[in-house]
Amino acid sequence: MNPHRGRLLKAPESFLTPDQIAEVSAGRRDFLRRAFLAAGGLALAGRAAAAEAGPPAGGGDPAILEKQPWATSLGRPVASRPYGLPSHYEKNIQRRESPGLTRVGEASVAFAPLQSLFGIITPNGLHFERHHQGWQDVDPSKHRLLVHGLVRAAKVYTMDDLMRLPSVSRIHFIECGANTAMEWGNVAVPTVQYTHGMLSSAEFTGVRLATLLDDCGADVKKGRFLLAEGGDGSGMTRTISMDRALDDALVAWGQNGEMLRPENGYPLRLVVPGVQGVSWVKWLRRIEVGDQPFATKDETSHYVDLMPDGQHRQYTSIQECKSVITTPSGGQVLLEKGFYNVTGLAWSGRGKIKRVDMSFDGGRSWKPARLETPVLAKSLTRFNIDWTWDGREALLRSRAVDETGYVQPQLRTLREVRGTRSIYHNNAIQTWKVGADGEVSNVQLA
Amino acid sequence: MNPHRGRLLKAPESFLTPDQIAEVSAGRRDFLRRAFLAAGGLALAGRAAAAEAGPPAGGGDPAILEKQPWATSLGRPVASRPYGLPSHYEKNIQRRESPGLTRVGEASVAFAPLQSLFGIITPNGLHFERHHQGWQDVDPSKHRLLVHGLVRAAKVYTMDDLMRLPSVSRIHFIECGANTAMEWGNVAVPTVQYTHGMLSSAEFTGVRLATLLDDCGADVKKGRFLLAEGGDGSGMTRTISMDRALDDALVAWGQNGEMLRPENGYPLRLVVPGVQGVSWVKWLRRIEVGDQPFATKDETSHYVDLMPDGQHRQYTSIQECKSVITTPSGGQVLLEKGFYNVTGLAWSGRGKIKRVDMSFDGGRSWKPARLETPVLAKSLTRFNIDWTWDGREALLRSRAVDETGYVQPQLRTLREVRGTRSIYHNNAIQTWKVGADGEVSNVQLA
Repeated sequence: MNPHRGRLLKAPESFLTPDQIAEVSAGRRDFLRRAFLAAGGLALAGRAAAAEAGPPAGGGDPAILEKQPWATSLGRPVASRPYGLPSHYEKNIQRRESPGLTRVGEASVAFAPLQSLFGIITPNGLHFERHHQGWQDVDPSKHRLLVHGLVRAAKVYTMDDLMRLPSVSRIHFIECGANTAMEWGNVAVPTVQYTHGMLSSAEFTGVRLATLLDDCGADVKKGRFLLAEGGDGSGMTRTISMDRALDDALVAWGQNGEMLRPENGYPLRLVVPGVQGVSWVKWLRRIEVGDQPFATKDETSHYVDLMPDGQHRQYTSIQECKSVITTPSGGQVLLEKGFYNVTGLAWSGRGKIKRVDMSFDGGRSWKPARLETPVLAKSLTRFNIDWTWDGREALLRSRAVDETGYVQPQLRTLREVRGTRSIYHNNAIQTWKVGADGEVSNVQLA
Repeated sequence: MNPHRGRLLKAPESFLTPDQIAEVSAGRRDFLRRAFLAAGGLALAGRAAAAEAGPPAGGGDPAILEKQPWATSLGRPVASRPYGLPSHYEKNIQRRESPGLTRVGEASVAFAPLQSLFGIITPNGLHFERHHQGWQDVDPSKHRLLVHGLVRAAKVYTMDDLMRLPSVSRIHFIECGANTAMEWGNVAVPTVQYTHGMLSSAEFTGVRLATLLDDCGADVKKGRFLLAEGGDGSGMTRTISMDRALDDALVAWGQNGEMLRPENGYPLRLVVPGVQGVSWVKWLRRIEVGDQPFATKDETSHYVDLMPDGQHRQYTSIQECKSVITTPSGGQVLLEKGFYNVTGLAWSGRGKIKRVDMSFDGGRSWKPARLETPVLAKSLTRFNIDWTWDGREALLRSRAVDETGYVQPQLRTLREVRGTRSIYHNNAIQTWKVGADGEVSNVQLA
């Protein structure tokens, strides 16, 4: 079974075996077919239709429930897994490297399986990875953070020092600046895991960077910029403006309630809400306050936008308003006509999502999707919308609007300004085609 | 090292070895001592104090950062762990069974390590466990949900059927009705993991129970009650009122972005926000609509409150407003005087938390804590407050108030009404004593 097909009928890919899918497609699994019709009835005409959908799937006979082996056996004791794991039926839900995208796995990407995720929290085990020299499991008792430069007193902090300071917890998205990079050209990557999977979201806990700068007596007038440096072998460095540092940046140790994972910078990373992931420096070991941008290799030769006139745009770090439908999405298959819950994610580096519109006809007509709460600034927003598929070809698009009024652009519009040679900062509307055979694919429309 | 000591100085327990702790206590690790003083200066008098705190710990010399092995080696490639795990330095952060609490592990509890958690999201691997006949890894392709009773058309749903229906995602706490049970008597359980660790929180995704009842044409007038039944060997059954079912109850498959874990009911559980955990039936296989409470064994002989007059209160299912300080908490040790970020959790089954007050003198004086956002109904709310420990004995208490105006009671007040023989629904104020030696312990005050 193709592990990238994602969920079928919104079920995780592993729910049905290839044989079962073939059976369903051939109409031989009557209980499924009948259940689909019944569920479809709900959308078509509400309760009346559901009631008229014939006898309940499975006959409504409670006896079928008694046959299950888990109803008649002793289960496993508590704490048999002191740190729990997903069901073994979910083993195909993984982050995945795109073969050939980079030359070595230590300087590569593993994409989050967006097609299989729910809500706005990315489980830490499936958070996307982007490393420049591989990930390290840093010893927290030996880790240090140096704050120096234009400060009254340079300081070296231990983890214990940091974790005594006033802490805050905030839910934010993180997106790699290179997310959706391949779509700049005419490469329609097949699945949402690979088109948009350098995107994750978590509740981060840490100390405000402003608190640390205050603790060291940073000169916030002259010191208009900071350099953040990572402790891994790549020595990743990024310039952050002082305005942003004093606003909502965090020096974080917590992610979704527990310590950061090694792949995400354990024990300490910078969190710069709304800004591209590379600036969220992992294994953070040094912050230097300076009076101008530091113009390091990582920000002058990488993470720049090549424009049509041959110039590079630098320091283009805000992740603009964007959205994507995660189900149905490329590689998935709709096995039956009828009702579907179409779902996806929207986000903006400028603030809150105000609205998400959905089109099922390639952008000719739009209607608003339901936004799940809470809708938070610089965080993912989950949207859902009802859809009854009539079995004909359909072109699905989502278009997000943020609280500044910015509307997610069409790819054509973006290309008019920025050409086709960029790698970074593609926030264009994504189109998924549902074929008459139910196959969902990535198409680029003008 | 005692694995239950929790975090020292807010750092996870594994940050310092016993030898290191002894060194710190003996004042031999100068960098730590000086760093603590510097960090303390922040709280005492802000930037000026920090600047006067002497030379920075570690000398402020960036050279010390260069010695770290992870700065000079190649790390591990992306996707080397397709499903990630915590750092191996965090291996002591586990859910734990309380030895001897029950006779067999299949009918027992594993408590969440609240002392080591941040924010309001409990990582799925550390979500508390309470099973009645052990946990099962149910095959989702074989799992079914029957909805029957006072309905127009009984139906059996497959997981695929359910996951096509309109879905919602919501963050809610779940607390076992027996959480904090031992405190009813005079048993002061030593750590917050064992006093309050039958508490977790997650973003749940599923279909509203109201949608399913509508799909089956439930008689919502005559059918004033529902029975929910689990698919494991214990056949757990709980009565839910129709009002609650139509309000905010979910039939959920998603937890923190991924499928439920087997220990939490994979692939399907009931979510009944604000209600004790036992009603959140796991491995949910059957919902029956009826015209009166079902009075099953699980709700008439268990999960009832034994009152001083010998009567049992039944169907007391709402988890009332409650809070607890998680750091510092029992078993932790403050190694130095000075500044600490005191943090904890507050929640109410009736709605949102409106305020949390903190006392450091056993309840004589109170001041408001900072509430982290978002503050959501029937969800955990994280609070933080600054504290400078002067090295003398202190009695720490938190007191939550919810949006209905309900104030978390003192244990004495609760006992006056409900006696000391209850097991369930203890939402009293918790007191932690910080001794002059820095040791934190659980004390019960009148």
